[in-house]
Amino acid sequence: MILPQLSHLASICAKSGITQAILSPGSRCAPIALALIRHPLIHCRTIPDERSAAFIALGMAQQLNKPVILVCTSGSAALNYGPALAEAFYQQIPLLVLTADRPAEWIDQWDGQTIRQDNLYGRHVKGSFTFPDEAGIPDKLWHAKRLVKEALSLARCFPMGPVHINIPVREPFYPKADEQYGFDVTDLEPVLEIQPGNQILGTDADGKLRNQLKAFHRMLLIPGQQRPSPKISAALAEIIRNQQAVVVTDTISNLAQEESVTHHDFFVDDPTRQEEMAPDLIISFGKSILSKALKQFLRKSQTAHWHVQPEGTVPDPFKKLSQIIRLQPETFLQFFLGAANPTDADFAQQWTQKNQAVRDKLPRYLGELEAFGELQALQQILPKLPPFGKVHLANSLAVRNVNFLGRPLSNVEIISNRGTSGIDGSNSTAVGCTFTTKETVTLITGDMAFFYDRNAFWHQYQLANLRVLLFNNQGGGIFRMIDGPAALPELEEYFETHQKLSGAHLAEEMGFDYWSVEDLSSLQNCLDTFYQKSLKPKILEIKSSSETNTRNLKLLKEKIRMHLDKNNL
Amino acid sequence: MILPQLSHLASICAKSGITQAILSPGSRCAPIALALIRHPLIHCRTIPDERSAAFIALGMAQQLNKPVILVCTSGSAALNYGPALAEAFYQQIPLLVLTADRPAEWIDQWDGQTIRQDNLYGRHVKGSFTFPDEAGIPDKLWHAKRLVKEALSLARCFPMGPVHINIPVREPFYPKADEQYGFDVTDLEPVLEIQPGNQILGTDADGKLRNQLKAFHRMLLIPGQQRPSPKISAALAEIIRNQQAVVVTDTISNLAQEESVTHHDFFVDDPTRQEEMAPDLIISFGKSILSKALKQFLRKSQTAHWHVQPEGTVPDPFKKLSQIIRLQPETFLQFFLGAANPTDADFAQQWTQKNQAVRDKLPRYLGELEAFGELQALQQILPKLPPFGKVHLANSLAVRNVNFLGRPLSNVEIISNRGTSGIDGSNSTAVGCTFTTKETVTLITGDMAFFYDRNAFWHQYQLANLRVLLFNNQGGGIFRMIDGPAALPELEEYFETHQKLSGAHLAEEMGFDYWSVEDLSSLQNCLDTFYQKSLKPKILEIKSSSETNTRNLKLLKEKIRMHLDKNNL
Repeated sequence: MILPQLSHLASICAKSGITQAILSPGSRCAPIALALIRHPLIHCRTIPDERSAAFIALGMAQQLNKPVILVCTSGSAALNYGPALAEAFYQQIPLLVLTADRPAEWIDQWDGQTIRQDNLYGRHVKGSFTFPDEAGIPDKLWHAKRLVKEALSLARCFPMGPVHINIPVREPFYPKADEQYGFDVTDLEPVLEIQPGNQILGTDADGKLRNQLKAFHRMLLIPGQQRPSPKISAALAEIIRNQQAVVVTDTISNLAQEESVTHHDFFVDDPTRQEEMAPDLIISFGKSILSKALKQFLRKSQTAHWHVQPEGTVPDPFKKLSQIIRLQPETFLQFFLGAANPTDADFAQQWTQKNQAVRDKLPRYLGELEAFGELQALQQILPKLPPFGKVHLANSLAVRNVNFLGRPLSNVEIISNRGTSGIDGSNSTAVGCTFTTKETVTLITGDMAFFYDRNAFWHQYQLANLRVLLFNNQGGGIFRMIDGPAALPELEEYFETHQKLSGAHLAEEMGFDYWSVEDLSSLQNCLDTFYQKSLKPKILEIKSSSETNTRNLKLLKEKIRMHLDKNNL
Repeated sequence: MILPQLSHLASICAKSGITQAILSPGSRCAPIALALIRHPLIHCRTIPDERSAAFIALGMAQQLNKPVILVCTSGSAALNYGPALAEAFYQQIPLLVLTADRPAEWIDQWDGQTIRQDNLYGRHVKGSFTFPDEAGIPDKLWHAKRLVKEALSLARCFPMGPVHINIPVREPFYPKADEQYGFDVTDLEPVLEIQPGNQILGTDADGKLRNQLKAFHRMLLIPGQQRPSPKISAALAEIIRNQQAVVVTDTISNLAQEESVTHHDFFVDDPTRQEEMAPDLIISFGKSILSKALKQFLRKSQTAHWHVQPEGTVPDPFKKLSQIIRLQPETFLQFFLGAANPTDADFAQQWTQKNQAVRDKLPRYLGELEAFGELQALQQILPKLPPFGKVHLANSLAVRNVNFLGRPLSNVEIISNRGTSGIDGSNSTAVGCTFTTKETVTLITGDMAFFYDRNAFWHQYQLANLRVLLFNNQGGGIFRMIDGPAALPELEEYFETHQKLSGAHLAEEMGFDYWSVEDLSSLQNCLDTFYQKSLKPKILEIKSSSETNTRNLKLLKEKIRMHLDKNNL
């Protein structure tokens, strides 16, 4: 029997422009799935592992900038969405999660696949709704329709994020062979549209802020994680040219440029240089920053911190948040261009000279490392990333290494799950990205993240534009680089968790093309063809040892430190 | 720096007899992990994928009948425990979940791996506690110790289940090289012991129940899921011999015997025979039953339902619960033996003759099926299961098929995750079981459950006593057997989710021995050596087609139905 509340659900989604759904198989969710599958404007894919399914939907919504629908059956299936929903919540990615459920009278009665699904995701969704379990009474049907609109509105208003509708369904729920879904695409029933407004500073606030700005001469502009924005990039370039601020850009900001500071990981933690780099004002916008050294530097500095964000509350990641500016970052940057002092020349030089010194020497010092490792491999790979491509950087070491090398990658989009920074869904998120673009999607990942989320590839869909750069050091190499665990006798068994898999089996099993390299010249050879078009996705596995990588990192840091010291930087 | 609250946590666990822990790697959780690793009486294993880790702990606790410790790092890692904790909650399996966290001041400040962990598991744990984030004040240390005892007590009291302690940890949290954990195994600090009491009926209740029982002459005894119990088995055998009740046993009851009804799936749904099988009283004990046909039969019957359970609330799975009897099942069955009437002879015969008729004919009819399929394979496998072994039956089709064949398997222990009946952790649960026994552990699984949870095998531990019988029909074969989805054009893509993997790659990758069969004689050959001792775990993959299995099931049901009809049963 076709349930009218579900036909309307599909219609409202489609009319609201929500046209992508990721389903996982199940019987209780069949009527929800079928309403979506049979709707002419909704595109559905099926992914068996719900954990991967949710990260795939996240990867799609990251790109589409609007909710993707998730549908799973009742019971523990829904709990497998948990990790991706927390990531979506903190990364502010909109998702519409539809969990099928038994009607209330059957909860906790020892029936199969039945758990307590109301508010299942706790404080990691923006809202949780319970659908009426039948629509025989007209107000119940209205209630259902209203909930869908309310949920979609909530998912899309700032900060965007996941919303959950729990949908109890009574048997019979399979349509009869001759039953037709009555989707009325010309339906007069309105859906809820949102007309965006652009905030501008009121006259008072404008004057006040302009005055306040005059007091500062050592300003740091710190963009957090965000998608690429030519407008913001151009404004930052102009600010740098005008010498109005020092702009420090992590790779996940998608705003790194030749003129911005990108090598801060190498020098910002030098205790003898804190004073000369000390800002009198930090201005940030976007989401989190990546560099732990930069975060700690900012937390130690005695200064003020302004954050630019049009709506909502703001965290205090540097322990000194003192002002929230209710503007879009691009609007604020235009204001800043007109209002900010020239920066103190010595302050600016301290940052830019250090940065330039690292940038000048890094390739040579990398070349001088004797043993092959991840850093040299990455250095060789980064210039080869195809322009306009998407690059997903997995947690934890992959994204840190790319940031560490500090190469501005202004012609690609950098994606990374820095909402919760888990290793649990990188593959799937990259797979979701491939579903939204014909450009090349490169996943740069370590072995732990890669094998953790291998079910990302367990489905029937083409991933021809996916390229995986798998940095395999046979374990959680990051632990060897942290002083605490590195010194412990338990390092290998309990922290690195030495693991023996290589990507070869997975590639064969999943029908991927596969190469493996352990030196730079083989890597170079592979890279020449790696990005050629193909029918199959490709894995290029870069094998190195965790010991070598740790030693290389140490050597490199020492060389850079000596060079900076020699130049009094 | 060693945190004293964590040393005490390890000591209290050890002194309470909690000696098994499953850790997942992370930095924030390092001090918790190290306190457990370095405690001389606690045995730790590391499993990288937290979803599998939690199901492995569940598989161990199922066997040990006491809490197993789980430790993971902060952030989304903890959410990957969700599915196993819900299963543990509904299956009443004790677990002590320790999640590392940042201290409260860093929550929601855009730091990595930081989510809202207080009460993270909602209503699917028995309790959720927050550890003090330091122990400088003596009462805080006492608080920490008290919480551990309280959590362990809660996990172990009826109904047993998972409990959660969220543990905020401040840096520095790695011990210095010369720092020693001060575990005092002779510590005078008491731990909380629980002396079990055995309930007996009060004189009044005894008389009343004895009187009530006299009114019933058509009683069904329905044991739900439980672990094997020679005492209960013997009591049921005696009740059957005395003809005091009909005993209907699903395979997950671990109480099926030659004299009990085990083939009910074949006849209990016959609409023309409902009256002659109708009970006047249903008495149940243990947890859920498996057979959907039996459940529906019981829900339709006009009768009373008593459930025997020493403590706690009881669900109403058959819609007619009218009495809870506060006794251990074995105590109640002794009472029943002394108090119950002989059953109506015709009523008993209706059940036992039908059951016997199926049991007599089933092997022949299975033999007559022309095309090789899962049912014949299972029929050949079940008698070969090694005595005293453990047999994990995966959801969804594997456990249903074994139940359907109705063969009493009184010399093995049947295990199945029927708390939430998900497909998400069968492999891991079976792996956890192998960590607790030297007996053979057989996992009988379909391909969807098997590949879903493949990270169960991604670790360094020996699984020599594991045997996997992988029934691969390239998808969710169960959907073809349900009338609703079977008739849909969307069946293959969206319900069966046709998948192409076989176990061969996984076996090679993980270093398992592997055979594949597609007919009965090859199966027979393999079975002859399959259970021989080995250093490696073994996979025997049984390939069949979903279409054939569906057709065979239909044919078999028709033949049995004709035979029963012919004999007026």
